[in-house]
Amino acid sequence: MRLGRFLCATGLALGWPVSIPLHSQEQAGAPPIRGFAVSRVAAQRALEARLQRIPAPDSAERHLRILTSEPHMAGTEGSKRVAEYIRDQLRSYGFEADLAHYKVWLPHPKEVKLELVTPEIKPLATPEDPFEWDKDTYNKNVVPGFNGYSPSGEVTAPVVYANYGLHEDYRRLEELGVRVEGKIVLVRYGRSFRGVKTRIAEEHKAAGVIIYSDPADDGYAAGDPYPRGPFRPPSGIQRGSVYYGSNHSGDPLTPGVAATENARRLRPEESKSLPRTPTMPINYRDAAEILKSLGGPRVPREWQGGLPFTYHVGPGQASVHMKLVMDYQLRSIWNPVGKLRGQNDDEWVILGNHHDAWVFGAVDPSSGTTAVLETARALGELARGGWKPRRTIIIACWDAEEFGLIGSTEWVEERVAELQQKAVAYLNLDSAVSGNAFGGSGTPSLKELVREVAREVTDPRTGRSVYEVWKENVERGRGRRRATSGTAAPPPAERDVPLGNLGSGSDYTPFFQHAGIPSLDMGFGGEYGVYHSVYDNFYWMKNFGDPTFVYHAAAARIAGLLLLRLAEADLLPFDYDAYGEEIERYVKDLEGVVKEQGAGKLELKPVSDAAAALTAAAARATRAISDFHGSGASSEAAKGAAINRALRNVEQALLSPGLASRPWYRHSIYAPGTYTGYEVVLLPGVREAVDKKDWDAAKREAAALADSLRRAAAQLDQAAKLAL
Amino acid sequence: MRLGRFLCATGLALGWPVSIPLHSQEQAGAPPIRGFAVSRVAAQRALEARLQRIPAPDSAERHLRILTSEPHMAGTEGSKRVAEYIRDQLRSYGFEADLAHYKVWLPHPKEVKLELVTPEIKPLATPEDPFEWDKDTYNKNVVPGFNGYSPSGEVTAPVVYANYGLHEDYRRLEELGVRVEGKIVLVRYGRSFRGVKTRIAEEHKAAGVIIYSDPADDGYAAGDPYPRGPFRPPSGIQRGSVYYGSNHSGDPLTPGVAATENARRLRPEESKSLPRTPTMPINYRDAAEILKSLGGPRVPREWQGGLPFTYHVGPGQASVHMKLVMDYQLRSIWNPVGKLRGQNDDEWVILGNHHDAWVFGAVDPSSGTTAVLETARALGELARGGWKPRRTIIIACWDAEEFGLIGSTEWVEERVAELQQKAVAYLNLDSAVSGNAFGGSGTPSLKELVREVAREVTDPRTGRSVYEVWKENVERGRGRRRATSGTAAPPPAERDVPLGNLGSGSDYTPFFQHAGIPSLDMGFGGEYGVYHSVYDNFYWMKNFGDPTFVYHAAAARIAGLLLLRLAEADLLPFDYDAYGEEIERYVKDLEGVVKEQGAGKLELKPVSDAAAALTAAAARATRAISDFHGSGASSEAAKGAAINRALRNVEQALLSPGLASRPWYRHSIYAPGTYTGYEVVLLPGVREAVDKKDWDAAKREAAALADSLRRAAAQLDQAAKLAL
Repeated sequence: MRLGRFLCATGLALGWPVSIPLHSQEQAGAPPIRGFAVSRVAAQRALEARLQRIPAPDSAERHLRILTSEPHMAGTEGSKRVAEYIRDQLRSYGFEADLAHYKVWLPHPKEVKLELVTPEIKPLATPEDPFEWDKDTYNKNVVPGFNGYSPSGEVTAPVVYANYGLHEDYRRLEELGVRVEGKIVLVRYGRSFRGVKTRIAEEHKAAGVIIYSDPADDGYAAGDPYPRGPFRPPSGIQRGSVYYGSNHSGDPLTPGVAATENARRLRPEESKSLPRTPTMPINYRDAAEILKSLGGPRVPREWQGGLPFTYHVGPGQASVHMKLVMDYQLRSIWNPVGKLRGQNDDEWVILGNHHDAWVFGAVDPSSGTTAVLETARALGELARGGWKPRRTIIIACWDAEEFGLIGSTEWVEERVAELQQKAVAYLNLDSAVSGNAFGGSGTPSLKELVREVAREVTDPRTGRSVYEVWKENVERGRGRRRATSGTAAPPPAERDVPLGNLGSGSDYTPFFQHAGIPSLDMGFGGEYGVYHSVYDNFYWMKNFGDPTFVYHAAAARIAGLLLLRLAEADLLPFDYDAYGEEIERYVKDLEGVVKEQGAGKLELKPVSDAAAALTAAAARATRAISDFHGSGASSEAAKGAAINRALRNVEQALLSPGLASRPWYRHSIYAPGTYTGYEVVLLPGVREAVDKKDWDAAKREAAALADSLRRAAAQLDQAAKLAL
Repeated sequence: MRLGRFLCATGLALGWPVSIPLHSQEQAGAPPIRGFAVSRVAAQRALEARLQRIPAPDSAERHLRILTSEPHMAGTEGSKRVAEYIRDQLRSYGFEADLAHYKVWLPHPKEVKLELVTPEIKPLATPEDPFEWDKDTYNKNVVPGFNGYSPSGEVTAPVVYANYGLHEDYRRLEELGVRVEGKIVLVRYGRSFRGVKTRIAEEHKAAGVIIYSDPADDGYAAGDPYPRGPFRPPSGIQRGSVYYGSNHSGDPLTPGVAATENARRLRPEESKSLPRTPTMPINYRDAAEILKSLGGPRVPREWQGGLPFTYHVGPGQASVHMKLVMDYQLRSIWNPVGKLRGQNDDEWVILGNHHDAWVFGAVDPSSGTTAVLETARALGELARGGWKPRRTIIIACWDAEEFGLIGSTEWVEERVAELQQKAVAYLNLDSAVSGNAFGGSGTPSLKELVREVAREVTDPRTGRSVYEVWKENVERGRGRRRATSGTAAPPPAERDVPLGNLGSGSDYTPFFQHAGIPSLDMGFGGEYGVYHSVYDNFYWMKNFGDPTFVYHAAAARIAGLLLLRLAEADLLPFDYDAYGEEIERYVKDLEGVVKEQGAGKLELKPVSDAAAALTAAAARATRAISDFHGSGASSEAAKGAAINRALRNVEQALLSPGLASRPWYRHSIYAPGTYTGYEVVLLPGVREAVDKKDWDAAKREAAALADSLRRAAAQLDQAAKLAL
């Protein structure tokens, strides 16, 4: 998964009480629940209270210990064993569960070599240091530091330092008179998806790319390094894929279709998702050796990292020799998928997370997998007690997410029509626990539901609700909302705790941006500097992330309540008022951009009118639905099903035939940025045309966007009409 | 002097052409000059052109080499020799010159000792490293790192790190549960005058204070350290006074009166200007040894400096033993003062800079002394050619500035009535060259004059005018305006290149804030990380600051033109329109503060009315003066003298009987902040009462301020009436 999606708190997760005074129990004369007929609220609250009692720290700890017992990179036996464990657990909880299997194009590293050749010969690419008390750091199956989907290659060249490797960084280099063509570019992690770093370096004709973790970003300048603290030690390496995911996610050889045994495949050289420039990650101990030997101008002040000398852009004395041999093969990946069949099997509520890890993956992804399993256990126990969900609940864990959201994408591509017919929502629970600061991102129609559920769950450290602590973190500015909400403009003043928007970086992407399924992503964030290193392991979690596993249990409670509300609601608890308002804001921001880039070149009035019409239709639908609940009519199952169908169609009405430059991405409102990777671009069709100053395309895109918004409004009017 | 008063540029001062295509010569049909009758403009321009040809890089280099040939701290023979050199130079240029002598209370260090005693014994307070090619670094007379006016003392105690040692830093420590009472506080240089660091530590009952230079601030994170670049190396120590200057400047035993041989003196224990807490500076090599051994909570993120480990606030294993033996005596100081007598010896234009240095002082102060001497040489040469200034020009260099602006303060205190009678303006030229980015601060009435003169002088690097390059620096955001303009509020949008306001930190303070003489402070700033260390020497200047000395010559040209305009103008070139507008802005800002601190508690309408009246009076005076020049009446000497007297009285009309808490400071509009030291406080009487929420005092102060403003307006009306 991507790093730093949520909040970053300052508290430490040590020794908090695990007794759970349930807020929902304390509230007598319970208030209504969004989506539920008044008559059903009490039963739902009782069901939720039963669910909340089940997730348990000791059970979570057991899961995490098993899930992190060996390295389990996608395409390895370890990964398959984890998939089987999850399938077996799901079965034991009463789910119908199986492994979905795909054959996808995956590289494993055969040889990764880096040495300084001038001013002196020195081997680099040193491995991560072992620590006596942490047996995992001695494991022989730990994959060396490498970047997934780097090509094989061998190059010796002088080095240029390019800060974070963003477009603006290369512009600065040009201003400084430094050329990168034919050189090896050394960049630091952060500020963009690493694949984008390779892509931009490639556009500038670099011969190779080295990405390192600067101690200013997640090492000693951020906090005490492992083993004294949770941050990256000098030898820590961030692995990760450099897949070009901006065109589509999933297997690079089967864009848009499932990578089944006999799928029609591109030849690798035809794929637009595979970088051509050798790229590898190193730790800052090695990076210092290169940086110290760079000459050329001093770096701009904000390029200076945390190493104890003045950085220079190079080139200079430093030349390095890089050799990468990658073993590319079609490899098997496995998604365990379980189903808890509902009274209505035509509506599915889906919870998922990936299960593959670069190494042990305690936080990423296994804390999420653990929470998913605890959620499944709780649902299973409710089902054994006689409960049958109104809608079917599907729980899935995806393989090969780390390489490019592959397991989830192939699964979605295999059944996109069925999902668009049946899926109510997709909840993603990747890296659910690295601390205690709750946060999330999602489609605007589900943001309020997350806040509502967070009010019901107790924060283990304080005994107050997760919502209250979340709000306090936001108000104190302690929890900075991280990049999932990466709008170019500053986030609008929100009346409540903010949730971000979905860009990319985890498995919601195929569901949300390809298939138009309302999606959420959430978790408890914290001080987490060992991302994608060998140190993201059980020892780390036990000492820093969540020593008593109470936040794993809390995450399972939140996921469980979300599922229960979505699966049990009479009318689906979507908040389209908020969606309409957010879109109106995006349009206003876009008008500002157009004014700057080419005032008068593009008329956005039809779009803002359509957005206003959507908000108005949402208000009508909300009123009608409220009356419907009040009237008790919501027990009319047939009528409810029709309304729900209309409500579900709203998000899909916002799909377009696909973005001009990358039609796999179909959402009219949200796409990941081509040159940020993780960050979201809002109203991407129009925005990207405007950024290119292609005004004809912008007009077409604006017309299409207005159409989408009107289609969505029509669905809401349909829902309102049915509810009357 | 204080550090970083001006702009910080990115260019390097290497090998620029020194040919000087004078802008003033290129402009045929010369435009008017502020303050000059139309009929006198051509002659003035010719005079200015002659002056501009005289200052020369080779002569400047000679001066700097001599001025920096030995350490010359105040109270030493070296300092007296420098004073004599300046006096002799002034005499050789035709000035009447002598040494003004005072006896002031000065400490010289006898023993400075620091050692880590736990977790291991390790001597600290290591001296600055010598470098083979820089003979000055081997000089045996270099004073060890010490803080002037620290008391003697010996203490062994655990250490707490308190960031920059500001009030807010101690509040954070308190939040973190860390007490500093009885401990040694380790703080870093920056963000406040160092004496304020000691003062605040003393208020918190610290047993001792250690101040170090963090590499994040002026070491490797800012740029390459000496000898590779101009920034502070690991062993570099910032000396400096910790004098409590917020009550008054000058000799601590003779506040308000001159420290002549037989002056009545306080006993040292009666002085409010002497710290009671032992304080010493160290380099970051030694600081790292302490910081590494601190325990306790991790520092807040913004406290983390540039050393390669995570900082902790302490206390912890580190205890240190500090021993300071200071030799306090009444010591002689010497101000060389020269006079170039004008046709009218009742009006004086004064140029000055200090001459004492902590060690060699190439930038601080000798680059300014060099420019002053080149200015004097140019004026002398004009005088030898038959020119006699209309007004007397006084050129003075002050001793013991580094200890507390002592030489200038005693000189001003000795003749405050005469100065208030005669002085037209004081120009300060401390540390005139550390790079190539021009900037300045001053009374608003002189800011426009600086811009006008900067248009006339060529920037050596670009061949364009100093003004154009200055403006470009400001527009590119390259030159950040530094702290002399330290208004709490962000600087107002200015229509032109901004000049700061005068806080404190150099010798303009007694002239401006005590005596009410319009003052300026200016220079060319740059990348200067060796402030108050042994490395601020001739080698540094020759390799980094101004290798060809062209900026020293440019500084002399600017100072020379300012003197010529002020000394020769028919009517003094003060811009009171700008002054009025600035004061109106300050009042508006103050209204904002009052609204926040106690809405309704203080009525500022009379003040804003008086400020508006001042602006209106200024406009009337400007119009009248313009007509006066146009009519040719400005050749009527008696009338002109009367108008000039009225114009000069405006700044003094802004004096009050003194601030309530520190009556030595008498300016109603500007004072140095009690807890910042260098930064300016605007409308200080009212502001300080408001900050204390003493609303009765605030009312009195507001009434007094309105009176001052009305008096100033009356002077302007008087000038207007005379000019009609």
